[in-house]
Amino acid sequence: MRVLGVDPGLTRCGVGVVDGVAGRSLTMLGVGVVRTPADDQIGARLVLIEQGIEAWIDEYQPEMVAVERVFSQHNVRTVMGTAQASAVAMLCASRRGIPVALHTPSEVKAAVTGSGRADKAQVGAMVTRLLRLSAPPKPADAADALALAICHIWRAPAQNRLQQAVALHASKGRTR
Amino acid sequence: MRVLGVDPGLTRCGVGVVDGVAGRSLTMLGVGVVRTPADDQIGARLVLIEQGIEAWIDEYQPEMVAVERVFSQHNVRTVMGTAQASAVAMLCASRRGIPVALHTPSEVKAAVTGSGRADKAQVGAMVTRLLRLSAPPKPADAADALALAICHIWRAPAQNRLQQAVALHASKGRTR
Repeated sequence: MRVLGVDPGLTRCGVGVVDGVAGRSLTMLGVGVVRTPADDQIGARLVLIEQGIEAWIDEYQPEMVAVERVFSQHNVRTVMGTAQASAVAMLCASRRGIPVALHTPSEVKAAVTGSGRADKAQVGAMVTRLLRLSAPPKPADAADALALAICHIWRAPAQNRLQQAVALHASKGRTR
Repeated sequence: MRVLGVDPGLTRCGVGVVDGVAGRSLTMLGVGVVRTPADDQIGARLVLIEQGIEAWIDEYQPEMVAVERVFSQHNVRTVMGTAQASAVAMLCASRRGIPVALHTPSEVKAAVTGSGRADKAQVGAMVTRLLRLSAPPKPADAADALALAICHIWRAPAQNRLQQAVALHASKGRTR
């Protein structure tokens, strides 16, 4: 499974592509950041993010796009920009028919470090190890995008089993 | 000036097109709502909003798009959806080179009713009167989209004068 992870943000939108299946080794295909100038108008910034995400999808043809699920607990200004950037990423994937998965920051941290409360350095260190890189990807948004992709590859089988169980239960319910 | 007003929302995105200039009578060209099913996946809903906004822009060729500025004070869940829908509207306009203006709900209410704390009914009544309609547009999101367009037409001259003053001041600063 090839997954494009997106850590959404207006100023820096982390992107990373990982290839792999659960239980086997993972391969990083690419990592980077889509940046937009903070003094540009919001509409222009969203267009730049769209062009950036499109270019990554064109180049790597991912089967899935994993985007960080945005919450509104933190800084209000940042959260609005994050929600808007994530909307563009989801739009780019969905209009090509590529499934979108959302994972919370704590799901991602728990997947790659074993703890939902791990810090940035720990996430960066585990991403480096799991993808056999020579150094942690910089900036942190890039490492987070790879962590999102890894999280999705590892969680997908469990999610599929859950969906199968639900489907089985539903079909049993119908024949009962 | 022809303005497309957008009252962003995931479930109901109000859209309304108004033609006019400040100080002269206004004409409504169209009003409606772009709806998306609440049980669809978020990516699919954003694609539907994109298609809806694109269709309105294609049909009415607005010179400006006025979008409600989203704040994060209210219901957290709603606000995230509103921010995401507004991102799609701004993206659709900006990538065609159509300028986007943002107005706060209280600016819009003050523009059409004289009070920034007017209620929905008051806004609907004034939109009906100003556009010489036979009844208030339903649902409220549609009326709000028209109010946004009217607000923009009326505020634009003041904003232009302000920008000219700023530009003049800046050019004087350079020659000093």
